[in-house]
Amino acid sequence: MLVAGIDSGSISTGFAFVEEKGRCLTAVDFGALRPKTGQPLPDRIEFLFNGVSALFDKYSPDMMALEDIFMAKNVQSAFKLGQVRGAIIAAARTRGIKVMEFTPTLVKSAVTGYGRAEKSQVAFMVTKLLGLEEKPSSEDASDALALAITGILRKETPR
Amino acid sequence: MLVAGIDSGSISTGFAFVEEKGRCLTAVDFGALRPKTGQPLPDRIEFLFNGVSALFDKYSPDMMALEDIFMAKNVQSAFKLGQVRGAIIAAARTRGIKVMEFTPTLVKSAVTGYGRAEKSQVAFMVTKLLGLEEKPSSEDASDALALAITGILRKETPR
Repeated sequence: MLVAGIDSGSISTGFAFVEEKGRCLTAVDFGALRPKTGQPLPDRIEFLFNGVSALFDKYSPDMMALEDIFMAKNVQSAFKLGQVRGAIIAAARTRGIKVMEFTPTLVKSAVTGYGRAEKSQVAFMVTKLLGLEEKPSSEDASDALALAITGILRKETPR
Repeated sequence: MLVAGIDSGSISTGFAFVEEKGRCLTAVDFGALRPKTGQPLPDRIEFLFNGVSALFDKYSPDMMALEDIFMAKNVQSAFKLGQVRGAIIAAARTRGIKVMEFTPTLVKSAVTGYGRAEKSQVAFMVTKLLGLEEKPSSEDASDALALAITGILRKETPR
């Protein structure tokens, strides 16, 4: 089973593809997609939609894990981030990829055992769980890896 | 020139395709896409993405006009409506359709001459401007027609 974790954002969208084989978790790929700074939102949406679509086509994940509740500061930022997220959901669903949503608390709890863990603790555990040689260089990639791991650990459908 | 107007919403998304030939405006098609009630948001997003994609493929519009500022009651509804809008922008942009955004005030002003016009006045003028036999049956379709007309009247690029 291959699960994608996507930490969506208009400035940077973290992505991760994690494979489960038996009891073993492997990071197949991870990183962040960053639209050019200063681009209008429709350009960013197109860039991110094309970027995740290409990754989905490359790796054909079974599921995609997203953060469930977005802690928006205000209506404007919720609206902007919603637009990026909607494009990513469309990219997944039109490829038959199941969409799962997890609260940040659940993701932290799944990878660290503590729902209010710091970002650095999440990065530390992600590195350990996947046997990476070093911490992911970006926080968005680390969060995406944590989402993908949570997706695997919490998946309802048996394979 | 053919312009699409899309009045995006998770319950109902109004659509309109308006053609300009010389000084004449014609409604090629209009209506509303309505996901099944009670569906989870990812299902609605997929339904609306597929619905507008099929319409874009059928009519190949040059441009799409959307409402610019969304008057969200709260962060949750802004986030939800943002997601629908992002999927629609992705559908347009990946087909090379230019995205234009107009404030509700500008749309009302473009079709009625008054930026704070009532919905019924917008519907009346849309019916007049396009020479429809009767008012569009849904408010979403009427708003989408108004957006498409605004797109044609306010387009920057000469054809």
